[in-house]
Amino acid sequence: MQQPNRFVALNSYVNGGPINETHFSLRQGSLPQLKQGQVLLKTLVLSVDPYMRGCMTGLDTYFLPQFQLGKPIMSLGVAQIVESQNGNYSPGDLVQGFIDWSDYSIWSGATLVPGVGTLQTVDPGIGKLSHALGVFGLNGLTAFFGILGVARPRAGETMVLSGAAGGVGILAGQIARILGVRVIGLAGSEPKRKVLVDQLGFEAALDYRSEKLADELRALAPHGPDIYFDNVGGSLSQIVMSVMRRPGRVVECGQISTYDEAGGGWKVDIRPIHANGLRWESFTTAHFNEFTPAAIGQLSHWVRTGKIIPLETEHRGLEATPRAMVGILRGDNIGKMVVTVAGIE
Amino acid sequence: MQQPNRFVALNSYVNGGPINETHFSLRQGSLPQLKQGQVLLKTLVLSVDPYMRGCMTGLDTYFLPQFQLGKPIMSLGVAQIVESQNGNYSPGDLVQGFIDWSDYSIWSGATLVPGVGTLQTVDPGIGKLSHALGVFGLNGLTAFFGILGVARPRAGETMVLSGAAGGVGILAGQIARILGVRVIGLAGSEPKRKVLVDQLGFEAALDYRSEKLADELRALAPHGPDIYFDNVGGSLSQIVMSVMRRPGRVVECGQISTYDEAGGGWKVDIRPIHANGLRWESFTTAHFNEFTPAAIGQLSHWVRTGKIIPLETEHRGLEATPRAMVGILRGDNIGKMVVTVAGIE
Repeated sequence: MQQPNRFVALNSYVNGGPINETHFSLRQGSLPQLKQGQVLLKTLVLSVDPYMRGCMTGLDTYFLPQFQLGKPIMSLGVAQIVESQNGNYSPGDLVQGFIDWSDYSIWSGATLVPGVGTLQTVDPGIGKLSHALGVFGLNGLTAFFGILGVARPRAGETMVLSGAAGGVGILAGQIARILGVRVIGLAGSEPKRKVLVDQLGFEAALDYRSEKLADELRALAPHGPDIYFDNVGGSLSQIVMSVMRRPGRVVECGQISTYDEAGGGWKVDIRPIHANGLRWESFTTAHFNEFTPAAIGQLSHWVRTGKIIPLETEHRGLEATPRAMVGILRGDNIGKMVVTVAGIE
Repeated sequence: MQQPNRFVALNSYVNGGPINETHFSLRQGSLPQLKQGQVLLKTLVLSVDPYMRGCMTGLDTYFLPQFQLGKPIMSLGVAQIVESQNGNYSPGDLVQGFIDWSDYSIWSGATLVPGVGTLQTVDPGIGKLSHALGVFGLNGLTAFFGILGVARPRAGETMVLSGAAGGVGILAGQIARILGVRVIGLAGSEPKRKVLVDQLGFEAALDYRSEKLADELRALAPHGPDIYFDNVGGSLSQIVMSVMRRPGRVVECGQISTYDEAGGGWKVDIRPIHANGLRWESFTTAHFNEFTPAAIGQLSHWVRTGKIIPLETEHRGLEATPRAMVGILRGDNIGKMVVTVAGIE
């Protein structure tokens, strides 16, 4: 008899316009018998990330595969091995990788995203398991490489940071601050801005919806910010880039404000870049893969010594994943958005 | 009695879609009496440049003013002073600046483009007057600063150049070649490509419409081009950037292929930039204004010693300006597009 297994599926693609919880459903599935080479995973924590919106458009996009309708959604997550037919993994092991939005899943080496199919061991001494997904996961690596590898700031420079209270934002800002950078965070709510300044030591935090944002930025950086670390894109970035001056640098990390556009977003009106003669650089963590151990080692040191506070927003229960997904695109989270599905056995 | 004076006007704005000659008309105007401080100019040569398409949309664009319907179009040009009520200029002087598309015009210091209102003296020993607009004008400065100030190539690097046979393209390619760069030009016709390779010494010239362009670029630059000097934008740039690899640099010089889009263009789909981790830098000559004498001095040396061949496509007669304008947006020209209106008195 097959074991029952709940999973969360996407019901329909949404090309343009916001997603909401009705686009998802919690369904009842079942687990087949484990085959040679496979392992049975119990889902512990799931990561919810903005890029996933691009897997929900139904479009043949440039770099993201599409979720299969009616099948389990996949994301980065931490799981525990409860049964193993694979010599490399033992029951009880903690692992991370791309896993299903389900209570249990069978891993056989084939995953949604080519080249990232391997399950990696999670050190049980990590502290919080969710840190494997946040500060020591995709968010931490993105912030680390974005600042150290792309922005390469000098102490005393001024950096404007959009999506400052997001999973990458809080870390990019704190890393820049460690390096002596004046960090001006942009965030959409007063509680977020208070956290950025009071708890994380940002020099200032501004409301990205302010009609006077350009003037507020000019007041804080009269010669224009040296760096704009951009997680957001769209009309906000137009405003920030309009106050920058050559040779200001833009670090393009994400374009979350555009993902709901028909066609999937990622279009940039480059006129302020052209008019102001800016340098604009993109990256993904894949471009720095060889340096992942260096990044994680350094991030661990900073977390241990209290120089980085890895804030998180936690949802609980597999059924909360759609709410978390809708929420991250709406900016509900402060720090890393995770869903805790179950505890360690 | 007022002196009759022909001029070319824009009849209607075109927001999206190509312009054609019916959007222009040659009209009969008249010249008022010269006032104190003014000079009377006779138009000798007019420059036709792609940016002018942006002045024909009727939109409140980011950096371009709109031509006034029914009034003389303005562009960079060379003129001769035939009468002067201004102590700084004498009859017979050759000058350049923003002037009317008309046989004669009155200059009083007020021009279309703020900050560039001054008439500058043209050295009668320049050789061809049109060189003041091309190799020693906007095109030459754009190519010089784009290569020396933005691309900053090292000898042996590979540079892909779009719009390679255009006014900026032929110069950017030749300057890069002087610096030891392997230049791969993209151009739309066989005669253009032949000129680039046989006459200008480009390493290769490819048809930008080729369905195998990505493969052809990979064959010529197996590790991806180091530099992409982009005059064109749009889908062509998507292809070029898709074969580039971090830390490849894109020099954004112009986006001519997008200017006919509704809204005026300048939108870039940044997914290949993001996926490949590219550095993307824009500029205008205004960012290097302090170095204009250095640039013109060096360009003069290169032209004199035969290292740069300043190719031009010449139209004749004021009535030919609409044809030249439509033609430059269609890519009819090889090198600088100019309209010779009259000879020196």
